[in-house]
Amino acid sequence: MKKFEEKTYEKETIYQGKIVRLEVDSVTLPDGNTSKRELIKHPGAVAVIALTDEGKLVVVEQYRKPMEKSMVEIPAGKLEPGESPEVCALRELEEETGYTTQKLEKITSFYTSPGFADEIVHLYFTDQLHRLEESPAGDEDEFVELMELSLEEAEEMEKEERIHDAKTAYALLFWKLRGQK
Amino acid sequence: MKKFEEKTYEKETIYQGKIVRLEVDSVTLPDGNTSKRELIKHPGAVAVIALTDEGKLVVVEQYRKPMEKSMVEIPAGKLEPGESPEVCALRELEEETGYTTQKLEKITSFYTSPGFADEIVHLYFTDQLHRLEESPAGDEDEFVELMELSLEEAEEMEKEERIHDAKTAYALLFWKLRGQK
Repeated sequence: MKKFEEKTYEKETIYQGKIVRLEVDSVTLPDGNTSKRELIKHPGAVAVIALTDEGKLVVVEQYRKPMEKSMVEIPAGKLEPGESPEVCALRELEEETGYTTQKLEKITSFYTSPGFADEIVHLYFTDQLHRLEESPAGDEDEFVELMELSLEEAEEMEKEERIHDAKTAYALLFWKLRGQK
Repeated sequence: MKKFEEKTYEKETIYQGKIVRLEVDSVTLPDGNTSKRELIKHPGAVAVIALTDEGKLVVVEQYRKPMEKSMVEIPAGKLEPGESPEVCALRELEEETGYTTQKLEKITSFYTSPGFADEIVHLYFTDQLHRLEESPAGDEDEFVELMELSLEEAEEMEKEERIHDAKTAYALLFWKLRGQK
Protein backbone atom coordinates (compact mmCIF):
# COMPACT_ATOMS: atom_id res chain seq x y z
CA MET A 1 0.00 0.00 0.00
CA LYS A 2 1.34 3.38 -1.05
CA LYS A 3 -1.47 5.65 0.13
CA PHE A 4 -0.25 9.22 0.76
CA GLU A 5 3.11 8.28 -0.79
CA GLU A 6 5.98 10.67 -0.18
CA LYS A 7 8.24 10.66 -3.24
CA THR A 8 11.96 11.14 -2.62
CA TYR A 9 13.70 13.68 -4.86
CA GLU A 10 16.96 13.82 -2.92
CA LYS A 11 18.64 11.46 -0.49
CA GLU A 12 21.59 12.27 1.74
CA THR A 13 23.45 9.72 3.84
CA ILE A 14 24.62 11.57 6.94
CA TYR A 15 26.31 8.68 8.74
CA GLN A 16 27.04 5.03 8.10
CA GLY A 17 27.77 3.35 11.43
CA LYS A 18 28.39 -0.23 12.53
CA ILE A 19 24.71 -0.72 13.29
CA VAL A 20 22.65 2.18 11.99
CA ARG A 21 22.73 4.44 8.95
CA LEU A 22 21.23 7.91 9.15
CA GLU A 23 19.67 9.31 5.97
CA VAL A 24 17.82 12.54 5.35
CA ASP A 25 15.38 12.27 2.45
CA SER A 26 13.83 15.29 0.76
CA VAL A 27 10.28 14.36 -0.22
CA THR A 28 7.30 15.65 -2.15
CA LEU A 29 4.13 15.34 -0.06
CA PRO A 30 0.68 14.31 -1.38
CA ASP A 31 -0.34 18.00 -1.58
CA GLY A 32 2.72 18.92 -3.66
CA ASN A 33 4.64 20.63 -0.86
CA THR A 34 8.04 19.38 0.20
CA SER A 35 9.49 18.23 3.50
CA LYS A 36 12.47 16.37 4.95
CA ARG A 37 12.43 12.95 6.62
CA GLU A 38 15.13 11.79 9.03
CA LEU A 39 15.46 8.03 8.63
CA ILE A 40 17.39 5.41 10.58
CA LYS A 41 18.22 2.28 8.59
CA HIS A 42 18.74 -0.81 10.74
CA PRO A 43 19.49 -4.45 9.81
CA GLY A 44 16.48 -5.83 11.71
CA ALA A 45 16.32 -8.00 14.79
CA VAL A 46 14.81 -11.09 16.36
CA ALA A 47 13.45 -11.84 19.82
CA VAL A 48 12.40 -15.08 21.50
CA ILE A 49 9.64 -15.74 24.02
CA ALA A 50 11.11 -18.84 25.72
CA LEU A 51 9.32 -20.72 28.51
CA THR A 52 11.13 -23.31 30.63
CA ASP A 53 9.71 -26.69 31.67
CA GLU A 54 8.74 -24.98 34.95
CA GLY A 55 6.68 -22.45 33.00
CA LYS A 56 9.05 -19.56 33.59
CA LEU A 57 10.05 -16.88 31.10
CA VAL A 58 13.73 -16.71 30.17
CA VAL A 59 15.01 -13.13 30.24
CA VAL A 60 18.36 -11.37 30.24
CA GLU A 61 19.47 -8.24 32.02
CA GLN A 62 21.86 -5.96 30.19
CA TYR A 63 23.00 -2.34 30.14
CA ARG A 64 21.19 -0.21 27.59
CA LYS A 65 23.29 2.81 26.78
CA PRO A 66 20.57 4.97 25.17
CA MET A 67 18.66 5.01 28.50
CA GLU A 68 21.75 4.75 30.74
CA LYS A 69 20.15 1.94 32.72
CA SER A 70 20.15 -1.84 32.77
CA MET A 71 16.97 -3.47 31.54
CA VAL A 72 15.43 -6.95 31.72
CA GLU A 73 14.32 -8.16 28.29
CA ILE A 74 13.50 -11.32 26.39
CA PRO A 75 16.55 -12.65 24.47
CA ALA A 76 17.08 -10.69 21.27
CA GLY A 77 19.67 -9.57 18.80
CA LYS A 78 20.43 -8.08 15.43
CA LEU A 79 20.41 -9.95 12.13
CA GLU A 80 23.84 -10.58 10.62
CA PRO A 81 24.18 -9.84 6.89
CA GLY A 82 22.41 -12.60 4.94
CA GLU A 83 21.19 -14.38 8.08
CA SER A 84 17.58 -15.62 8.16
CA PRO A 85 15.47 -14.51 11.15
CA GLU A 86 14.95 -18.11 12.29
CA VAL A 87 18.69 -18.92 12.29
CA CYS A 88 19.35 -15.64 14.09
CA ALA A 89 16.68 -16.37 16.71
CA LEU A 90 18.23 -19.76 17.54
CA ARG A 91 21.73 -18.27 17.63
CA GLU A 92 20.73 -15.45 19.98
CA LEU A 93 18.80 -17.84 22.23
CA GLU A 94 21.87 -20.10 22.53
CA GLU A 95 24.38 -17.28 22.98
CA GLU A 96 22.41 -15.26 25.50
CA THR A 97 20.76 -18.02 27.54
CA GLY A 98 22.65 -21.31 27.06
CA TYR A 99 19.37 -22.94 26.03
CA THR A 100 18.59 -24.41 22.65
CA THR A 101 15.43 -25.76 21.05
CA GLN A 102 14.29 -27.90 18.14
CA LYS A 103 11.07 -25.98 17.82
CA LEU A 104 10.81 -22.26 17.24
CA GLU A 105 7.38 -20.98 16.29
CA LYS A 106 7.10 -17.64 14.47
CA ILE A 107 4.59 -15.44 16.30
CA THR A 108 4.63 -12.16 14.43
CA SER A 109 6.88 -9.34 13.35
CA PHE A 110 6.60 -5.62 13.92
CA TYR A 111 8.39 -2.36 13.17
CA THR A 112 9.48 -0.80 16.44
CA SER A 113 9.56 2.92 15.54
CA PRO A 114 7.79 3.44 12.22
CA GLY A 115 8.02 7.22 12.45
CA PHE A 116 11.79 7.36 12.00
CA ALA A 117 13.34 3.88 11.78
CA ASP A 118 12.94 0.74 9.67
CA GLU A 119 13.97 -1.66 12.47
CA ILE A 120 11.79 -4.77 12.38
CA VAL A 121 11.63 -7.38 15.16
CA HIS A 122 10.79 -10.97 14.21
CA LEU A 123 9.27 -12.64 17.24
CA TYR A 124 9.48 -16.37 18.02
CA PHE A 125 8.06 -18.64 20.71
CA THR A 126 9.26 -21.89 22.25
CA ASP A 127 8.36 -23.90 25.32
CA GLN A 128 10.70 -26.76 24.44
CA LEU A 129 14.07 -25.77 25.83
CA HIS A 130 17.15 -27.93 26.37
CA ARG A 131 20.27 -26.77 28.22
CA LEU A 132 23.44 -26.71 26.15
CA GLU A 133 26.47 -28.30 27.82
CA GLU A 134 28.45 -25.23 26.90
CA SER A 135 27.09 -21.84 25.80
CA PRO A 136 28.49 -20.55 22.54
CA ALA A 137 30.34 -17.25 22.84
CA GLY A 138 28.26 -14.17 22.07
CA ASP A 139 29.35 -10.69 21.03
CA GLU A 140 32.52 -9.74 22.89
CA ASP A 141 31.10 -6.36 23.88
CA GLU A 142 27.85 -7.75 25.32
CA PHE A 143 27.41 -8.51 29.02
CA VAL A 144 24.15 -10.18 30.00
CA GLU A 145 22.79 -11.92 33.07
CA LEU A 146 20.25 -14.71 32.72
CA MET A 147 17.06 -14.89 34.81
CA GLU A 148 13.91 -17.01 34.77
CA LEU A 149 10.71 -15.32 35.89
CA SER A 150 7.20 -16.34 36.87
CA LEU A 151 4.44 -14.21 35.33
CA GLU A 152 3.95 -12.51 38.71
CA GLU A 153 7.67 -11.70 38.97
CA ALA A 154 7.71 -10.38 35.42
CA GLU A 155 4.67 -8.16 36.01
CA GLU A 156 6.28 -6.82 39.19
CA MET A 157 9.43 -5.97 37.22
CA GLU A 158 7.28 -4.20 34.64
CA LYS A 159 5.72 -2.07 37.40
CA GLU A 160 9.23 -1.22 38.63
CA GLU A 161 10.23 -0.36 35.02
CA ARG A 162 13.08 -2.89 35.03
CA ILE A 163 11.10 -4.52 32.22
CA HIS A 164 10.46 -1.49 30.05
CA ASP A 165 10.70 -2.24 26.32
CA ALA A 166 8.10 -2.89 23.63
CA LYS A 167 9.00 -6.49 22.67
CA THR A 168 9.08 -7.68 26.30
CA ALA A 169 5.84 -5.83 27.12
CA TYR A 170 4.30 -7.59 24.10
CA ALA A 171 5.73 -10.92 25.30
CA LEU A 172 4.06 -10.57 28.71
CA LEU A 173 0.63 -9.96 27.13
CA PHE A 174 1.18 -12.87 24.72
CA TRP A 175 2.11 -15.12 27.67
CA LYS A 176 -0.99 -14.03 29.65
CA LEU A 177 -3.33 -14.61 26.72
CA ARG A 178 -1.79 -18.03 26.07
CA GLY A 179 -2.34 -19.03 29.71
CA GLN A 180 -6.01 -18.21 29.42
CA LYS A 181 -6.68 -20.52 26.51
CA MET B 1 19.84 -0.15 38.04
CA LYS B 2 23.32 0.26 36.60
CA LYS B 3 24.42 -3.39 36.30
CA PHE B 4 27.12 -3.82 33.63
CA GLU B 5 27.36 -0.03 33.33
CA GLU B 6 29.18 1.29 30.28
CA LYS B 7 30.96 4.51 31.23
CA THR B 8 31.23 7.19 28.55
CA TYR B 9 34.69 8.74 28.09
CA GLU B 10 33.93 10.58 24.87
CA LYS B 11 30.72 11.75 23.23
CA GLU B 12 30.35 12.95 19.66
CA THR B 13 27.18 14.47 18.24
CA ILE B 14 27.08 13.47 14.58
CA TYR B 15 23.77 15.08 13.62
CA GLN B 16 21.10 17.21 15.25
CA GLY B 17 17.93 16.92 13.23
CA LYS B 18 14.38 18.21 13.62
CA ILE B 19 13.33 14.97 15.32
CA VAL B 20 16.36 12.81 16.13
CA ARG B 21 19.90 13.44 17.29
CA LEU B 22 22.61 10.90 16.44
CA GLU B 23 25.45 10.52 18.96
CA VAL B 24 28.38 8.16 19.02
CA ASP B 25 29.60 7.46 22.55
CA SER B 26 32.97 5.87 23.30
CA VAL B 27 32.53 3.65 26.35
CA THR B 28 34.48 1.56 28.81
CA LEU B 29 32.91 -1.89 29.18
CA PRO B 30 32.59 -3.87 32.46
CA ASP B 31 35.73 -5.88 31.54
CA GLY B 32 37.80 -2.73 30.97
CA ASN B 33 37.79 -2.93 27.17
CA THR B 34 36.36 -0.12 25.10
CA SER B 35 33.68 0.06 22.42
CA LYS B 36 31.49 2.56 20.58
CA ARG B 37 27.74 2.97 20.89
CA GLU B 38 25.59 4.56 18.19
CA LEU B 39 22.69 6.29 19.92
CA ILE B 40 19.54 7.94 18.60
CA LYS B 41 18.07 10.55 20.93
CA HIS B 42 14.33 11.10 20.44
CA PRO B 43 11.84 13.39 22.26
CA GLY B 44 9.49 10.51 23.16
CA ALA B 45 5.97 9.80 21.98
CA VAL B 46 2.44 8.90 23.02
CA ALA B 47 -0.15 6.52 21.61
CA VAL B 48 -3.84 6.02 22.37
CA ILE B 49 -5.92 2.83 22.37
CA ALA B 50 -9.33 4.38 21.68
CA LEU B 51 -12.54 2.33 21.48
CA THR B 52 -15.78 3.79 20.07
CA ASP B 53 -19.24 3.31 21.59
CA GLU B 54 -19.67 0.48 19.04
CA GLY B 55 -16.59 -1.24 20.47
CA LYS B 56 -14.37 -0.49 17.48
CA LEU B 57 -10.72 0.51 17.56
CA VAL B 58 -9.85 3.94 16.15
CA VAL B 59 -6.83 3.75 13.85
CA VAL B 60 -5.18 5.94 11.24
CA GLU B 61 -3.47 5.04 8.01
CA GLN B 62 -0.42 7.07 7.03
CA TYR B 63 2.66 6.80 4.87
CA ARG B 64 5.75 5.67 6.76
CA LYS B 65 8.82 6.75 4.88
CA PRO B 66 11.37 4.43 6.59
CA MET B 67 9.47 1.38 5.24
CA GLU B 68 8.20 3.09 2.05
CA LYS B 69 4.67 1.86 2.73
CA SER B 70 1.49 3.10 4.33
CA MET B 71 0.63 1.55 7.67
CA VAL B 72 -2.46 1.35 9.88
CA GLU B 73 -1.66 2.33 13.47
CA ILE B 74 -3.30 3.54 16.64
CA PRO B 75 -3.19 7.36 16.92
CA ALA B 76 0.23 8.51 18.09
CA GLY B 77 2.65 11.38 17.98
CA LYS B 78 5.78 12.96 19.32
CA LEU B 79 6.01 15.01 22.50
CA GLU B 80 6.50 18.73 21.98
CA PRO B 81 9.19 20.39 24.15
CA GLY B 82 7.86 20.69 27.71
CA GLU B 83 4.58 18.92 26.90
CA SER B 84 3.29 16.30 29.34
CA PRO B 85 2.47 12.87 27.88
CA GLU B 86 -1.18 13.17 28.89
CA VAL B 87 -1.65 16.56 27.20
CA CYS B 88 0.14 15.22 24.12
CA ALA B 89 -2.05 12.09 24.02
CA LEU B 90 -5.25 14.17 24.05
CA ARG B 91 -3.85 16.57 21.42
CA GLU B 92 -2.84 13.74 19.06
CA LEU B 93 -6.19 11.97 19.53
CA GLU B 94 -8.05 15.17 18.64
CA GLU B 95 -5.81 16.13 15.69
CA GLU B 96 -5.62 12.70 14.10
CA THR B 97 -9.14 11.38 14.74
CA GLY B 98 -11.50 14.27 15.47
CA TYR B 99 -12.50 12.54 18.71
CA THR B 100 -11.92 13.86 22.20
CA THR B 101 -12.36 12.36 25.66
CA GLN B 102 -12.62 13.41 29.29
CA LYS B 103 -11.01 10.19 30.47
CA LEU B 104 -7.59 8.96 29.39
CA GLU B 105 -6.20 6.08 31.41
CA LYS B 106 -2.43 5.50 31.43
CA ILE B 107 -1.74 1.86 30.54
CA THR B 108 2.03 1.59 30.44
CA SER B 109 5.12 2.98 28.76
CA PHE B 110 7.91 1.25 26.90
CA TYR B 111 11.12 1.94 25.03
CA THR B 112 10.71 0.92 21.42
CA SER B 113 14.32 0.10 20.40
CA PRO B 114 16.46 -0.12 23.53
CA GLY B 115 19.52 -1.29 21.60
CA PHE B 116 20.09 1.99 19.80
CA ALA B 117 17.38 4.57 20.63
CA ASP B 118 15.88 6.22 23.70
CA GLU B 119 12.41 6.68 22.17
CA ILE B 120 9.74 5.95 24.79
CA VAL B 121 6.03 5.50 24.02
CA HIS B 122 3.51 6.43 26.71
CA LEU B 123 0.35 4.40 26.09
CA TYR B 124 -3.17 5.52 27.03
CA PHE B 125 -6.63 3.95 26.86
CA THR B 126 -10.10 5.38 26.50
CA ASP B 127 -13.52 3.97 25.66
CA GLN B 128 -15.30 7.28 26.25
CA LEU B 129 -15.04 9.17 22.98
CA HIS B 130 -16.95 12.23 21.83
CA ARG B 131 -16.85 13.65 18.31
CA LEU B 132 -15.48 17.16 18.04
CA GLU B 133 -17.54 19.51 15.87
CA GLU B 134 -14.37 20.54 14.12
CA SER B 135 -11.02 18.71 14.17
CA PRO B 136 -8.07 20.86 15.20
CA ALA B 137 -5.36 21.17 12.54
CA GLY B 138 -2.49 18.73 12.88
CA ASP B 139 1.06 18.92 11.52
CA GLU B 140 0.99 20.44 8.05
CA ASP B 141 3.20 17.65 6.65
CA GLU B 142 1.06 14.79 8.02
CA PHE B 143 -1.61 13.07 5.93
CA VAL B 144 -3.73 10.50 7.74
CA GLU B 145 -6.95 8.62 7.04
CA LEU B 146 -9.21 7.59 9.88
CA MET B 147 -10.68 4.08 10.22
CA GLU B 148 -12.62 2.20 12.87
CA LEU B 149 -11.99 -1.54 13.10
CA SER B 150 -13.58 -4.54 14.76
CA LEU B 151 -11.12 -6.91 16.45
CA GLU B 152 -11.56 -9.35 13.57
CA GLU B 153 -10.83 -6.65 10.99
CA ALA B 154 -7.78 -5.51 12.94
CA GLU B 155 -6.42 -9.06 13.21
CA GLU B 156 -6.95 -9.56 9.49
CA MET B 157 -4.98 -6.36 8.79
CA GLU B 158 -2.23 -7.64 11.07
CA LYS B 159 -2.03 -10.85 9.01
CA GLU B 160 -1.79 -8.76 5.84
CA GLU B 161 0.94 -6.66 7.52
CA ARG B 162 -1.02 -3.43 7.02
CA ILE B 163 -0.94 -3.29 10.84
CA HIS B 164 2.74 -3.91 11.43
CA ASP B 165 4.16 -1.85 14.30
CA ALA B 166 4.95 -2.63 17.92
CA LYS B 167 2.52 -0.25 19.67
CA THR B 168 -0.47 -1.34 17.55
CA ALA B 169 0.46 -5.04 17.94
CA TYR B 170 0.55 -4.42 21.70
CA ALA B 171 -2.80 -2.61 21.50
CA LEU B 172 -4.48 -5.59 19.82
CA LEU B 173 -3.29 -7.99 22.56
CA PHE B 174 -4.37 -5.50 25.24
CA TRP B 175 -7.82 -5.24 23.61
CA LYS B 176 -8.17 -9.04 23.41
CA LEU B 177 -7.17 -9.54 27.04
CA ARG B 178 -9.59 -6.82 28.13
CA GLY B 179 -12.45 -8.49 26.27
CA GLN B 180 -11.83 -11.72 28.12
CA LYS B 181 -12.23 -10.23 31.60
